[in-house]
Amino acid sequence: MTAFLHDIVLVGSGNVATRLGLAIHEAGYRISQVYSRNKKTGKTLAEKLEAEFCSTISRLKTDASLTIIAISDDALPEFSDLFRSDGLVVHTSGSTGLKALSKCSDSYGVLYPLQTLSANTEIDFTSVPLCVEANNKKNLENLTYFARSISRNVRTVDSKQRAALHLAAVFACNFSNHMFSISDEILKEKGLKLELLLPLINETLRKIIHQSPSSAQTGPARRGDQKTIKKHLSMLSDPDLKKIYRVISDDIQKGR
Amino acid sequence: MTAFLHDIVLVGSGNVATRLGLAIHEAGYRISQVYSRNKKTGKTLAEKLEAEFCSTISRLKTDASLTIIAISDDALPEFSDLFRSDGLVVHTSGSTGLKALSKCSDSYGVLYPLQTLSANTEIDFTSVPLCVEANNKKNLENLTYFARSISRNVRTVDSKQRAALHLAAVFACNFSNHMFSISDEILKEKGLKLELLLPLINETLRKIIHQSPSSAQTGPARRGDQKTIKKHLSMLSDPDLKKIYRVISDDIQKGR
Repeated sequence: MTAFLHDIVLVGSGNVATRLGLAIHEAGYRISQVYSRNKKTGKTLAEKLEAEFCSTISRLKTDASLTIIAISDDALPEFSDLFRSDGLVVHTSGSTGLKALSKCSDSYGVLYPLQTLSANTEIDFTSVPLCVEANNKKNLENLTYFARSISRNVRTVDSKQRAALHLAAVFACNFSNHMFSISDEILKEKGLKLELLLPLINETLRKIIHQSPSSAQTGPARRGDQKTIKKHLSMLSDPDLKKIYRVISDDIQKGR
Repeated sequence: MTAFLHDIVLVGSGNVATRLGLAIHEAGYRISQVYSRNKKTGKTLAEKLEAEFCSTISRLKTDASLTIIAISDDALPEFSDLFRSDGLVVHTSGSTGLKALSKCSDSYGVLYPLQTLSANTEIDFTSVPLCVEANNKKNLENLTYFARSISRNVRTVDSKQRAALHLAAVFACNFSNHMFSISDEILKEKGLKLELLLPLINETLRKIIHQSPSSAQTGPARRGDQKTIKKHLSMLSDPDLKKIYRVISDDIQKGR
């Protein structure tokens, strides 16, 4: 098995590439090359990983045992049109199918970290859920073996399930985080800090470990308290915030 | 100071009344009377608190040292029109001003628990932030003293700040919880469990302890990844979910 892992190439230098690269490096693997169009972030990451930096596709190794493409979904089609490899090639995208890499190599797969990753925020990568998929049994075995050496939480997920997971993650993570941003903005205007709401946010999360979020719901929309809903709408001067308040409150009142 | 606390009356038997009543009872105070229009929940709560139950306003004590009105915002105006007391009267509403109780007594105030409370979910009340306000210094001192004996986290907050806190809490708690509900629904359709996303949800929360939610944001809308946004919209068959996805993604892209 170990022969499979002797030479890893990392494509990308953003949030996912950085966190994944560091986790692989810390697990004792050798990343020989980092490719990125962004020379600044690319060089920085390559240095941290003790890898060669390259910003030209033609210089990218084609014989690496594993090439991990961790670039934005928008950039992926162009890159996969230009890149060919003799080894296993995987992408890290939640919403891109397995087949997107079929032209890059005979061996391809997906290594999707189901976690919000920021280049500048440390994380215990061993607890990051990794969803794996590959084009055949042998490649899936190799990829699973590799994934298990950097995380305790690895599972096989097909492209349709992964797409649903990614969409669900946008709601559960990005959109809920945006609710915190709006909250922060409302409080700042009155000289208050989001810190005050942390016990409330913690409790919201604690509840859904034991019951469904739908049954745990509280607040004016769930109570159908129109008076408070009206009052809140009148307090929001930003028309975009009014719109967000309205569509979510309507949806809560309809019930899910 | 203790003379102030010899006799407490609780109005209401819903989520807030139940959790607050139990916390007061457990702190060793005597609640002599529970008033509620709902006889079933009212009697149950009165029994737990070893208090007399009453469902007629005319039987409500008018000489209690502290009367806590924990009823819905919609019901509060009618109740305060009909109730008079010689003691301190407080309500527990986030979005109702202090003045709403000015006719009930010469001594009035607010005791607002900034937490999502459910009658059937136990909570460590000593960590619930309590926001207090009163119509004069002496009443504020008494109320603060009382609040500190049931929670470690008490602060003075005026009516305008409290209204902003309540609005911010709706976004940070109710609306983020609704994002979890939607997430749960999307996953269920594919035979997956929300459990899979708990590390992601936990990390989303962990990040905002150290940085602003706005700077911690990730995902397709933050990256301006139109391809993924389009794909996600096409995956959502429910027009209400499409609308919610669109308004929040637009707002993230504009930046806050």
